[in-house]
Amino acid sequence: MAGYLENLWVASVLKFTSPSIGQVSVEDAYFAPRIAANHEATIPATFRFSRETGRLDAFRLKWKKGMPNQPHVFWDSDVAKFIEGMAYDLVLHPDDRKLAEKLDKIVSLVVSAQQPDGYLNTHFTTVEPENRFRFLHGAHELYCCGHLIEASIAHFQATGKRNFLDCMCRYADYVYSVFGRGKGKKRGYPGHEEIELALVKLADITGEKRYFRLAQYFIEERGRKPNYYVANENRKEWELANLQAETTVRERKDAVGHSVRMMYLACGMADVAARADDVELLARCADVFRSVSQRRMFITGGIGSTRIGEAFEGDYKLGNLDAYAESCAAMGLVWFTQRMHNATGDGLYLDVLERALYNGALAGISLSGDHFFYQNPLRSSVDSPYNRERVEWFSCSCCPTNFCRFLPQIGSFLWSECESEIRLNIPAASTFRSGDRAIQVTGGYPYKGDVTVRFLADDDCTFSFRVPGWCRRYLVKVNGSPLFTMPEAGFVKITRAWKKGDKISIALALPVEVMRANPAVDDDAGKVAFQRGPLVYALESIDNGPLLQTVSVLDDGAFRLGPAKGLPTGTVAISGHAVEMIRPGTELYSAAKPVVKKRSFTAIPYALWQNRGLSEMEVWIRET
Amino acid sequence: MAGYLENLWVASVLKFTSPSIGQVSVEDAYFAPRIAANHEATIPATFRFSRETGRLDAFRLKWKKGMPNQPHVFWDSDVAKFIEGMAYDLVLHPDDRKLAEKLDKIVSLVVSAQQPDGYLNTHFTTVEPENRFRFLHGAHELYCCGHLIEASIAHFQATGKRNFLDCMCRYADYVYSVFGRGKGKKRGYPGHEEIELALVKLADITGEKRYFRLAQYFIEERGRKPNYYVANENRKEWELANLQAETTVRERKDAVGHSVRMMYLACGMADVAARADDVELLARCADVFRSVSQRRMFITGGIGSTRIGEAFEGDYKLGNLDAYAESCAAMGLVWFTQRMHNATGDGLYLDVLERALYNGALAGISLSGDHFFYQNPLRSSVDSPYNRERVEWFSCSCCPTNFCRFLPQIGSFLWSECESEIRLNIPAASTFRSGDRAIQVTGGYPYKGDVTVRFLADDDCTFSFRVPGWCRRYLVKVNGSPLFTMPEAGFVKITRAWKKGDKISIALALPVEVMRANPAVDDDAGKVAFQRGPLVYALESIDNGPLLQTVSVLDDGAFRLGPAKGLPTGTVAISGHAVEMIRPGTELYSAAKPVVKKRSFTAIPYALWQNRGLSEMEVWIRET
Repeated sequence: MAGYLENLWVASVLKFTSPSIGQVSVEDAYFAPRIAANHEATIPATFRFSRETGRLDAFRLKWKKGMPNQPHVFWDSDVAKFIEGMAYDLVLHPDDRKLAEKLDKIVSLVVSAQQPDGYLNTHFTTVEPENRFRFLHGAHELYCCGHLIEASIAHFQATGKRNFLDCMCRYADYVYSVFGRGKGKKRGYPGHEEIELALVKLADITGEKRYFRLAQYFIEERGRKPNYYVANENRKEWELANLQAETTVRERKDAVGHSVRMMYLACGMADVAARADDVELLARCADVFRSVSQRRMFITGGIGSTRIGEAFEGDYKLGNLDAYAESCAAMGLVWFTQRMHNATGDGLYLDVLERALYNGALAGISLSGDHFFYQNPLRSSVDSPYNRERVEWFSCSCCPTNFCRFLPQIGSFLWSECESEIRLNIPAASTFRSGDRAIQVTGGYPYKGDVTVRFLADDDCTFSFRVPGWCRRYLVKVNGSPLFTMPEAGFVKITRAWKKGDKISIALALPVEVMRANPAVDDDAGKVAFQRGPLVYALESIDNGPLLQTVSVLDDGAFRLGPAKGLPTGTVAISGHAVEMIRPGTELYSAAKPVVKKRSFTAIPYALWQNRGLSEMEVWIRET
Repeated sequence: MAGYLENLWVASVLKFTSPSIGQVSVEDAYFAPRIAANHEATIPATFRFSRETGRLDAFRLKWKKGMPNQPHVFWDSDVAKFIEGMAYDLVLHPDDRKLAEKLDKIVSLVVSAQQPDGYLNTHFTTVEPENRFRFLHGAHELYCCGHLIEASIAHFQATGKRNFLDCMCRYADYVYSVFGRGKGKKRGYPGHEEIELALVKLADITGEKRYFRLAQYFIEERGRKPNYYVANENRKEWELANLQAETTVRERKDAVGHSVRMMYLACGMADVAARADDVELLARCADVFRSVSQRRMFITGGIGSTRIGEAFEGDYKLGNLDAYAESCAAMGLVWFTQRMHNATGDGLYLDVLERALYNGALAGISLSGDHFFYQNPLRSSVDSPYNRERVEWFSCSCCPTNFCRFLPQIGSFLWSECESEIRLNIPAASTFRSGDRAIQVTGGYPYKGDVTVRFLADDDCTFSFRVPGWCRRYLVKVNGSPLFTMPEAGFVKITRAWKKGDKISIALALPVEVMRANPAVDDDAGKVAFQRGPLVYALESIDNGPLLQTVSVLDDGAFRLGPAKGLPTGTVAISGHAVEMIRPGTELYSAAKPVVKKRSFTAIPYALWQNRGLSEMEVWIRET
């Protein structure tokens, strides 16, 4: 697989599309309750905090020096992501009047903050109007603009109302008039990427090419010499990598710097590449993907290992206890790999999407939907200096608001299509409907490997399903008859004139896999992690007693599956043999010989940790 | 031993004293070259950097706004420690005229900066005179004053000249007039402790009780409610622990906060307790010692595990890769345990002194004497985010200047005495002379366990030598006849009318000890460290190849001793059996089974690492 990856070749831009929110109904036991919790808990809680912290009121533009709740540079983005999430949620709950009214009210408030010239930013209108677009490296203005654009598109798609979309077109027009290579324009670009991918979306929905050209400009201008930030904003050379401005996208080889920024840039690059048939730019995206997935990603799909700059570190620098692995970065990796699959058709990207989605991203939110991790370490002791409990809100609350819009999108990650082909990316129970097309997937994925695909209508097409990278054995039957086909780029393709009632049965073998890391990962040496299907597992002290580090497990193949105490019905726990090595005495250091005791261990899915109270947690466990 | 430690009882204040610098000639192969390098390299280099960075010129008080080299709040302390080191060095090299002249010249410059009221501080005289003693928590004024006092005493002792000492008495008198509980006085105390121990020294040398009372005041006032920093300097409650102001010394149970500050406070507490026969205060010092040595110290004697606040963390929080373990903190632990031994006579304190001295402290300086570590991790990869190479100087250069004064003091750690007893704390080759007394120790300690003690003059006394805590077997002969005595509080005592030529032969067994940490230390679980005598060992990639984490060692007792390549003659390396577990493939994560390969390993003394070029290093090694 590594060899294959090294030679990853971007042949052409295939242009798969992801279904829109309303096209997929998610019906599994893993995702569906999370999407429901978003409606019932995450969105209401986010509304409450947005109001209480002054984020909504900021759009009234009444703030004056000395008043509380001074609008922060990134507040607009929080509200924007929240609006986007509400709009998606409204698509899933079209009869929720209150939600629709609340959405329109907030949108009106946001739109009312637009300035006559089109500019829209609460901080730079009320707090420091003299500094509009002056400190791009840290001001988050273009980042906020990007999120507002995404929100306006979601609002338009959910309601058909153009007020917010038109408002954001005016803002985008204003940004277009300020930035670019033309005479009198600023040759700058955002410190925190996001507007690039938003402008591509805006171009898609409006058909306005200049928005696409502006996205292209921001992407291509980034990192050029002489450096804009060094020349205009007094930045040092060493600061540039954190904002991916140390080199141009054309020369980029590695994922560097702030991990969320890196992902959003990569999304924008992939969007532009796919639409411009820019195979070279797409190859640079593949380089970024390779750097992330093969050298700079936790097994959970978490990325950005250090809190210093919330950033990627060098290759194989993946410490577990102090892993930063911001929730937003895992979501960013999902969005990036979704785009890369859609651009290339390669299932490899979905292996990483699936890893980040099932593990690193969902770990960031409680099952109840109202508590969040900003950081997602792979080891936590009860008195850890880092994250050990999810909390309700953060002063920099990007993760909760990102979940509002991420969770309703889950259905769109499960499927993809192009003119002649419909793809089941991930076989979670769900129903896909598009025009006359209706296909239903049932089964117990990710806990069970039996998947049934039913055509609810006649359908002349190539149906293809992904054979996950972790899957070593699978069986396929079409209407009861075995089918033997080799997957191509990760997908088994079956072309037929499907009839209503046709059935494809897929059985994926789901053994417990004992995973080991590349030897270059210092912190994982001598340790194993358990994986079953797409799920990465973790030990919690709630099941295993305290001092998890004293447990070392046996890779003897004798693993047992069973229910996980205190977690949702159907959740599968893994148990097996372990030993505990205890040195006698209480001294800090001693030459006394240790005593070995046999015992068992129990592991639960990583994404579900810290849902049963305070607990130690460990993903990488010593092997005996 | 742990039980013993729990019941550590401070019976009375025994008052051993350490010899002065000139009384001990260090003649071993481990320390003597370091002390020589201080004379030849460390002091000259420190002089050069002190001049080049403007630290010396600062005392001319010519700095004006806009000029380069603005005097920093802690600069005076650097110069003071450097002066103290030069003075000690002059005692060891009394014929070095140039050194004596340079010392007097710098001293004159420092003295010239004294203000008419006695105040002496370059930063607060030139940069912000309006803020004298206004921001005690961070201003380092009293800290600088303490170091200048120590320097003035060293200068007086080395030269007999009183100019600097008198100057500092005037400054101490001024401080006495400003601080205290009297009417109109500031009820403050230093943010960075140091002046307490310095004032006790000053009282000792001048006989002035008020300096002692001022030290007592600073110690007892610390942490009282209402808190001075909260009330007067706008500090938050959570900030207080870093400066040991979260509680009073009478209620202190644990070593907390900035580790150097904690050690200097503990030194002052022990000094005051010993002189005031304050058994209760000494018991609090013992609590601090217990907290450090049994729960918060690396096996190297390094302390202060986190870079955040350069501080102690909670119990057993001892991560190896990111270990802060500042060089100055290890020196501080040596000074604190020296005082605790002198106050109590308990060899237990010297076990920790020896550990910190031979390992954690000396690791901070290169064999050449002119390169320094500020932090001393126990694991370093070549691309470690933390320290991997010693450097010549730091912008906050406390460690190099501390070495200037620490290295010449090593002789005074080896011996101690009281009226009726002379103690060999550490049996490194050395000669102790005091009045008519002359005792010589020869042998190859720490690499060899054979120690010979010779009386060079008749001596009616109890001679005692410490049996180190790590030593499980030893033999003693007096003039060839075996002696069987149980050690008391770590010391074997022999009372005789010693004659010139009398000889005590001590043979300490020095096997390779396979050390394990308390199971509560997460990062050391499943790992061992090698120790032989007082020396903690480490693997370097220079001897073992890269990716040290792939090596796991066998505790099979089959260890070989041999010369260490590229290190000073006589340095003993430890070799033994190991295995390397390599997972096939280059993927970041995979379910492939690992391949096990037999191999050997070689370890060198930890304190000597990174003296042969850039190298990975590991103290705690996985056990197979």
